[in-house]
Amino acid sequence: MAPRFTVRYFVRAADAAEAKARALDIALEQTVEIPRDVVPKGYVEDEILGRLETLEQAPDGRPGFLATISYSEDDVGGDFLQFLNIVFGNSSIKPGLKVEDIGLSPGILSLCKGPRHGITGLRARAGIGDIPLLMSAIKPVGLSTAALARLAHDFALGGMHYVKDDHGLVDQRTAPFSERLKACVEAVGEANAKSGGRTSFVPNITGPADAILERAKEAEAAGAGAVMIAPALAGYDVARMLAADPDFSLPIVAHPAFSGANVVSPDCGFSHRAFYGVLHRLMGADAVVFPNFGGRFGFTREECRSIAEACAVEMGGPKAGVPAPGGGVNFARVPEMRAVYGKDVMYLVGGALLQEPNLIDGCRRLAEAVYA
Amino acid sequence: MAPRFTVRYFVRAADAAEAKARALDIALEQTVEIPRDVVPKGYVEDEILGRLETLEQAPDGRPGFLATISYSEDDVGGDFLQFLNIVFGNSSIKPGLKVEDIGLSPGILSLCKGPRHGITGLRARAGIGDIPLLMSAIKPVGLSTAALARLAHDFALGGMHYVKDDHGLVDQRTAPFSERLKACVEAVGEANAKSGGRTSFVPNITGPADAILERAKEAEAAGAGAVMIAPALAGYDVARMLAADPDFSLPIVAHPAFSGANVVSPDCGFSHRAFYGVLHRLMGADAVVFPNFGGRFGFTREECRSIAEACAVEMGGPKAGVPAPGGGVNFARVPEMRAVYGKDVMYLVGGALLQEPNLIDGCRRLAEAVYA
Repeated sequence: MAPRFTVRYFVRAADAAEAKARALDIALEQTVEIPRDVVPKGYVEDEILGRLETLEQAPDGRPGFLATISYSEDDVGGDFLQFLNIVFGNSSIKPGLKVEDIGLSPGILSLCKGPRHGITGLRARAGIGDIPLLMSAIKPVGLSTAALARLAHDFALGGMHYVKDDHGLVDQRTAPFSERLKACVEAVGEANAKSGGRTSFVPNITGPADAILERAKEAEAAGAGAVMIAPALAGYDVARMLAADPDFSLPIVAHPAFSGANVVSPDCGFSHRAFYGVLHRLMGADAVVFPNFGGRFGFTREECRSIAEACAVEMGGPKAGVPAPGGGVNFARVPEMRAVYGKDVMYLVGGALLQEPNLIDGCRRLAEAVYA
Repeated sequence: MAPRFTVRYFVRAADAAEAKARALDIALEQTVEIPRDVVPKGYVEDEILGRLETLEQAPDGRPGFLATISYSEDDVGGDFLQFLNIVFGNSSIKPGLKVEDIGLSPGILSLCKGPRHGITGLRARAGIGDIPLLMSAIKPVGLSTAALARLAHDFALGGMHYVKDDHGLVDQRTAPFSERLKACVEAVGEANAKSGGRTSFVPNITGPADAILERAKEAEAAGAGAVMIAPALAGYDVARMLAADPDFSLPIVAHPAFSGANVVSPDCGFSHRAFYGVLHRLMGADAVVFPNFGGRFGFTREECRSIAEACAVEMGGPKAGVPAPGGGVNFARVPEMRAVYGKDVMYLVGGALLQEPNLIDGCRRLAEAVYA
């Protein structure tokens, strides 16, 4: 028998009998996807079929149960997308089910090496010790390459460790990808030469399906210090592949664009920690961007804390990533963010700095607030 | 000024003032993603910033409003993932917003050529006229290549027009991709030789990000008649690329694995028609698999009908695709499916046929029921 990994689901149900029936349906749906009475005896039934391991009332007052189901590594076939498909492929379409957590096994850990650099590597690249990382974003779309490069320069001079493209910057004619990449790497390099800093430029990697891996490599060749990818758009295997690719070596920042439906409803998708924490770490994201509590998105403090914890918790192999809360982060929020995230965090601040009369001073004030 | 495309959002709101504020937030969030007071004057504000075009009370009793926002083609930069990002990237993370519909523009239609074959091409390949298509799936995972090929043979002999891999079949050691592909194409070919039929085998295309396009081409070279892809896992540009790739020519069947959170909650994601209808057609899916009403998933009859309508409606260029409802489809459901879908549909029946004492007879009975 192959080792088994586990998925814990929240199952909305009125009572234990209904919960058990729904949980057994998940075990069937996620593996053999045929009626129970025609599941072939022997290997398919004994090994491939999902197995309900535990079922207990949800401890937090939600109207349902927690079901832990185990799945064979044999079912994964060395395919990360199939791993995700087993975790929640068809069952994602059934309301009242939510992936709460994932329990790994040796084969999954071997398939998913996790972040190549992790928080330690991101700090080393930035030349800093055991303190929070700072990231900002050049924007908006529609500015010229020169204007965006100037912003990158100023963010770097202001002491931001990572300066990323806005996730809406692609290959628009106002600032085409290759031109912008080159100009921003150069601008950040100039700022570093002035300041003695080690800021990295982080381009947004997107494009046609056959060009994405290539653009990531172009970014490395051009001197970028990391790349940003939106896994929910580009595909869930892209970051994992790049993180393990011998011809690529940059850290990967994951962006949550288009992923929201996976977490915002209490009645479907994933828990925040399972999605932005566990899955993104398995995908090889060194940093994971997500909306901070109290900003213009609806994540709670506890949901954000759970993501940060999942970025750092011992997983039996993968390095710790860094949570990068953003979205409405401003100076006033820094004290409560310090309280929630501690030092293992990357502050992602964009709009609030662009509102400052002097961008470079604004960055310095942000650093003072974070490191106070 | 570049042409603009539109997105209609459901916006949960207590009153018109709140709805307007939320709608203006969407226009900002999806384009410039900076505070309104620092949006640069001129091109960025006039062209790139989303524009609220109309706002009206939701006509269907839902607690909110419908906001139509227009976006410039300049913001898309020829990148389909960026198009999706504009439609719902960050706003997907805000509860109480739903994409109801998408209004296309010339540039989007030029970026997204739509299905290469469409329902007409799928019928021509199957050698049938203006009647429903029949598809089944070989499964479960864990069977040997020989056993799966035997199923493919029998489905073909029974008269199914398309025989697809279960979406859980990847490259497991019990039936590795290349071996299974070859064996199933051969088995279906044998059945066709016996019956004079024109059944196509449809392998499931997944794998590492750098292998997916290659596997699709391997499938074509090996004699497959179409390929199946799960866009929510593999990435949303894969099908679109293949549908336009001059070195590829097969029809594409889209599978909904992992996409469920995008539609099942009334409070986030997309309307069924926008997601499985409009977007999948823009992605180039010739056939789109989705859960039929009344089966083991929760889609309503009206939601299913809306998907079917969106597959066929005039879009200003893209061919009509075919809705492929599946998931718990059995003989008893055929009459009501005929009433809902009419003739422009592909019946996807798997488990119910595998429960039949004689698979070939079961397929023939299904065809009789569908064509009665």
